Amino acid sequence: MSGNTFGTVFRITTFGESHGAALGVIIDGCPAGLRMDEKIIQKELDRRRPGAGNNPAATPRSEPDTAEILSGVFDGFTTGTPIAVLIRNTSQNSRDYSGIAEKFRPGHADFSYFKKYGIRDYRGGGRSSGRETSARVAAGAVAKAFLKEKGIFIKAWTEEAAGIKCETYDENEIENNRMRAPDREAAGLMLEKIERLRMEGDSAGGIVSARISGEIPAGLGEPVFDKLEALLGQAVLSIGAVRGIEFGAGFETARMTGSESNDPLSCGGNGKVSFGENNAGGILGGISSGAEIFFRVAVKPVPSIRKIQKTITTAGEETEIEVHGRHDVCLCPRIVPVVEAMSALVIADLYLRNLASRI
Amino acid sequence: MSGNTFGTVFRITTFGESHGAALGVIIDGCPAGLRMDEKIIQKELDRRRPGAGNNPAATPRSEPDTAEILSGVFDGFTTGTPIAVLIRNTSQNSRDYSGIAEKFRPGHADFSYFKKYGIRDYRGGGRSSGRETSARVAAGAVAKAFLKEKGIFIKAWTEEAAGIKCETYDENEIENNRMRAPDREAAGLMLEKIERLRMEGDSAGGIVSARISGEIPAGLGEPVFDKLEALLGQAVLSIGAVRGIEFGAGFETARMTGSESNDPLSCGGNGKVSFGENNAGGILGGISSGAEIFFRVAVKPVPSIRKIQKTITTAGEETEIEVHGRHDVCLCPRIVPVVEAMSALVIADLYLRNLASRI
Amino acid sequence: MSGNTFGTVFRITTFGESHGAALGVIIDGCPAGLRMDEKIIQKELDRRRPGAGNNPAATPRSEPDTAEILSGVFDGFTTGTPIAVLIRNTSQNSRDYSGIAEKFRPGHADFSYFKKYGIRDYRGGGRSSGRETSARVAAGAVAKAFLKEKGIFIKAWTEEAAGIKCETYDENEIENNRMRAPDREAAGLMLEKIERLRMEGDSAGGIVSARISGEIPAGLGEPVFDKLEALLGQAVLSIGAVRGIEFGAGFETARMTGSESNDPLSCGGNGKVSFGENNAGGILGGISSGAEIFFRVAVKPVPSIRKIQKTITTAGEETEIEVHGRHDVCLCPRIVPVVEAMSALVIADLYLRNLASRI
Amino acid sequence: MSGNTFGTVFRITTFGESHGAALGVIIDGCPAGLRMDEKIIQKELDRRRPGAGNNPAATPRSEPDTAEILSGVFDGFTTGTPIAVLIRNTSQNSRDYSGIAEKFRPGHADFSYFKKYGIRDYRGGGRSSGRETSARVAAGAVAKAFLKEKGIFIKAWTEEAAGIKCETYDENEIENNRMRAPDREAAGLMLEKIERLRMEGDSAGGIVSARISGEIPAGLGEPVFDKLEALLGQAVLSIGAVRGIEFGAGFETARMTGSESNDPLSCGGNGKVSFGENNAGGILGGISSGAEIFFRVAVKPVPSIRKIQKTITTAGEETEIEVHGRHDVCLCPRIVPVVEAMSALVIADLYLRNLASRI
Repeated sequence: MSGNTFGTVFRITTFGESHGAALGVIIDGCPAGLRMDEKIIQKELDRRRPGAGNNPAATPRSEPDTAEILSGVFDGFTTGTPIAVLIRNTSQNSRDYSGIAEKFRPGHADFSYFKKYGIRDYRGGGRSSGRETSARVAAGAVAKAFLKEKGIFIKAWTEEAAGIKCETYDENEIENNRMRAPDREAAGLMLEKIERLRMEGDSAGGIVSARISGEIPAGLGEPVFDKLEALLGQAVLSIGAVRGIEFGAGFETARMTGSESNDPLSCGGNGKVSFGENNAGGILGGISSGAEIFFRVAVKPVPSIRKIQKTITTAGEETEIEVHGRHDVCLCPRIVPVVEAMSALVIADLYLRNLASRI
Repeated sequence: MSGNTFGTVFRITTFGESHGAALGVIIDGCPAGLRMDEKIIQKELDRRRPGAGNNPAATPRSEPDTAEILSGVFDGFTTGTPIAVLIRNTSQNSRDYSGIAEKFRPGHADFSYFKKYGIRDYRGGGRSSGRETSARVAAGAVAKAFLKEKGIFIKAWTEEAAGIKCETYDENEIENNRMRAPDREAAGLMLEKIERLRMEGDSAGGIVSARISGEIPAGLGEPVFDKLEALLGQAVLSIGAVRGIEFGAGFETARMTGSESNDPLSCGGNGKVSFGENNAGGILGGISSGAEIFFRVAVKPVPSIRKIQKTITTAGEETEIEVHGRHDVCLCPRIVPVVEAMSALVIADLYLRNLASRI
Repeated sequence: MSGNTFGTVFRITTFGESHGAALGVIIDGCPAGLRMDEKIIQKELDRRRPGAGNNPAATPRSEPDTAEILSGVFDGFTTGTPIAVLIRNTSQNSRDYSGIAEKFRPGHADFSYFKKYGIRDYRGGGRSSGRETSARVAAGAVAKAFLKEKGIFIKAWTEEAAGIKCETYDENEIENNRMRAPDREAAGLMLEKIERLRMEGDSAGGIVSARISGEIPAGLGEPVFDKLEALLGQAVLSIGAVRGIEFGAGFETARMTGSESNDPLSCGGNGKVSFGENNAGGILGGISSGAEIFFRVAVKPVPSIRKIQKTITTAGEETEIEVHGRHDVCLCPRIVPVVEAMSALVIADLYLRNLASRI
Repeated sequence: MSGNTFGTVFRITTFGESHGAALGVIIDGCPAGLRMDEKIIQKELDRRRPGAGNNPAATPRSEPDTAEILSGVFDGFTTGTPIAVLIRNTSQNSRDYSGIAEKFRPGHADFSYFKKYGIRDYRGGGRSSGRETSARVAAGAVAKAFLKEKGIFIKAWTEEAAGIKCETYDENEIENNRMRAPDREAAGLMLEKIERLRMEGDSAGGIVSARISGEIPAGLGEPVFDKLEALLGQAVLSIGAVRGIEFGAGFETARMTGSESNDPLSCGGNGKVSFGENNAGGILGGISSGAEIFFRVAVKPVPSIRKIQKTITTAGEETEIEVHGRHDVCLCPRIVPVVEAMSALVIADLYLRNLASRI
């Protein structure tokens, strides 16, 4: 396995470089009979796409990112055969790489890919570009559609960016501002700060949070290596700029006592079991308890910055580099749909795997 | 895949419940020709075992945890065939479970396992018990032996416990105190605090850090889903009490700017490339850069506490529970070898997978 | 993957050498709630064991082959966690290998293992010994128990041995003669011929047939690479002495016309669809049709013969070899339970995989 | 895993229906640095394509089958990232399905797919169509290019068709006649017989043989479930019309004695070990011995025939069916490149897996 496949039953394999002919994904294992068409996929792809011009958080590069379903769907329903989705690259030849083709960009995969494969694909990061995530989002749209049928919903948002934290949580606000923050005021401050960093040729990091809610069955997660945290962890940590993940009360739990961190079980009104403050983030022993699943993700600043940086050339000589071009300043709002996609893929897969748990 | 297998080329499958006949592991894919015997495995198992009586951080339960190699080794060397290691349970029948057999222990997997499998194995957590990690440690010992041949070393330690942080780092100190902390003074304070919590019938969490160093080749990690962070993340988050993981500067990176977080490349004295402060924790684009790999792990407090807790019965009635028995107060020192084992398994696997990266 | 794991959802991993400490298997993915105990496994293991002394087809080596369940079963039912089964080797040190330790036995894996792993484990074939199949049979017993719950039955028998074919088919006869042949008279002739070959220091091949019947659901098999023939093919061709497999009318189909080989569909009396002569062997497009599944397997003669053979030494010099010891003359009767076991594993796995085929 | 992925290190995932938008494949795990372009793939695709009009063995349907590489190749070499190949369907809407849309064609997957997925994609078989193999052939072209670099060659041919066997073997003849038979005279007789069957509205089966030769290293194959026969078996039995496979002397071995079937080892002139008549077909204990690998494959007659057949409707009523349209009469010549492709995929995968066999 060379790392481009994810999932066991609901399983995806992606391909594509930022500046090649196309990106895409094969979704294998989606059950037959799910309503599916290109609009369902396109809607999610559009969320990942950089905003309309004046969004200071996003790159001005405009990729239409149009999804074409090549197989696996007939008369508006999935057939049980692999669903291939194709996303053509349309502006892949527009950039000038002279000046960086022989230099390793700090914070990027240039150096490590070169060492691994013996090849320097200087065209915008190649496979390591964030553009790769469009294939994940396309696949995630199918997983989300499946989960929706089962009453399960996934929602991510920008919790913090450029050092500014959200103070309030209004779910309806999330898709209404360019930061995808649930706090309109904080979103405004984030955008101001980001605009300032852009002027300085610098960039910003942040924190993305996610919640999985609805009719989550108790029982998702496969002990001992495919625990729910383990697979969500792999899924989310495989997204380019992510540097950490924590579940429920996360790193804070490290400072709690057992009597503080344990969630007491009680009988909820609706016949469901309730778990106090849900410090566990909906996961007990690696298996969903039925409570809301919650986690937070650390996103590093965009490594492509105009500020002069020290680096070396492919020949091993020390030099300096300025990275120009169409780059995001803060990835959080665009990582939100990717986190949702990867989470949906994990949950859909574990849902199907769980079908075989009892005789 | 039901979750008891980990790895692709260097691959393990574990089995065993805390109170069944035995635990064990099959290690498949270890190359032939590696010097191997039971002592190599036993040494690591002994590190995971609870300390001698007076260690307040550890459970007084005394399992000899004796490893027997059943296959895959001939005349002191691995043969290329699967290496099975057996660890018999010896004191599995000694506890009294009346009083908890019908109740779900808060913070434990009791509820979620029951919902998943329809079975209540009340004997100490069954498969979800921390005892399961002895099989991981046995396998990790083989992975470590392989990595040692390649000049790669893995070291974990307790960075923080019960709210007390290490202020200094002395590697030689780590295995010299019962907290496995690199700061002797901090270790003393941790033990005091933990002893107090034990008296109160409560428990403590902490933070474990790990570092992978030596002749790490640039090139480990398989884009895009089996990135080095993604697999280390899965590996470590699959350990029972772990609630979060961060790489390099981790969550702190979220508040940095790009010019702060990017590591400049320069020529080290020894022909190796140097990466400034190594905020990336030795990983670029999901692939090792050759710099030291570094990560931190959040460990929750032991959920088994004597303090009275609210819970429900298997019949769904609200009740209270007191969990007695031989339990750790703080898991950090015993999780240290498990984190090392899981890390070794990831690195050994990626090392072998990387053999096929170029023609 | 190093080849010691088989199956996707119902998945086994085996270990063990003929002359090591033990053989065994971990069965991962068996649903919780299946009645299970050691007797169920032992019964199948006893079928694989060489017969009582006077069976000329079988080796006189007497291994008790006692199965111990180490995990995954509680109070007489599977728990959903991995089921480990251990089979100790008891007579592994009784043979004298001088005279063959430095020579490659023709027809055996000695040469190819040596070239692959750089190691010569001369003790009876090591991992390549037929004794390895006891772990398969133990796992197959669990798969069979699962299938029995679903009304599916698997039956194999010796169709031909030492050139003698069965002329009649009496299912009740199969386990009543030492050849496991459904034709008592043919069985007698086979045994005579085999006894003669034993005296000459030679051995015999044969053909084993298998049938899967009962409540086989239409729909087992996963296009396009995990078709039912493809997985049964892998399963059965992975048994040591098997040299070929054919489904339904098999090689004979190559000489038919389409109008002869196509099975017409009609309505059976019981609401089931009927498929004429079932030339397809119950498989259409790689997926079970609901009709009986049928295949035939070519088994080569036991390669261990007393007759003098030409070979080379590990040093590459030409020499001669006589292989003494406790060997079968014809493997068919002992391969019968192994073919059943491997078939059961495939069908159980595909049964569970099929649960996710529709929304 | 839903069955559309094959291989472990050199791994492919295919998609596409006969009458959807496109077919294709993602090849993951091809090492970086292999010379690659669309011509290399197109050349093999052209071999699978139906011949020019007057080939009576082939369907007159003319699909250009043009391969487009979408990723994984840069400046004429593979980059180590997944290679996606796209093959658009161009004539997918040209047929009239009235008359068969509600009927299950005998010998086809119509019935079993319907039962499995609950869907009747009547457009020419959908995923179960032989057209699916074009994606295999595209992937096999890449595997072949890799093996060629290592000095390994794969050659298949029609050994027998419509009851007529080749009497001579002239390798140069194979690609010179429309049957891909190594015996020109036999090829002529086959074509005559096939033409007669076409007139009658019937079809023919046959036997395809394959040989893997050149610098085959001893050591390919992973005991115990991924033996060379087991994986070649799965690979080849997953091709639509294949009903059986045998290795080396195959089913004939069942009638041999051990002294006849064992291949004596001797020292070849060139420092290589020689294996007598190579009854083992180059495989000992599931691992390549370095001798030529040889196997034979039973191919059933094309199930699409004009002759009237009995069948049932989707509503379960008995009826008759005549299958019109562009169909092959005998699949052998078109299966030849598919058998080569699948064999190349197995050998390339095992070659790369074998890199990790020794320390």
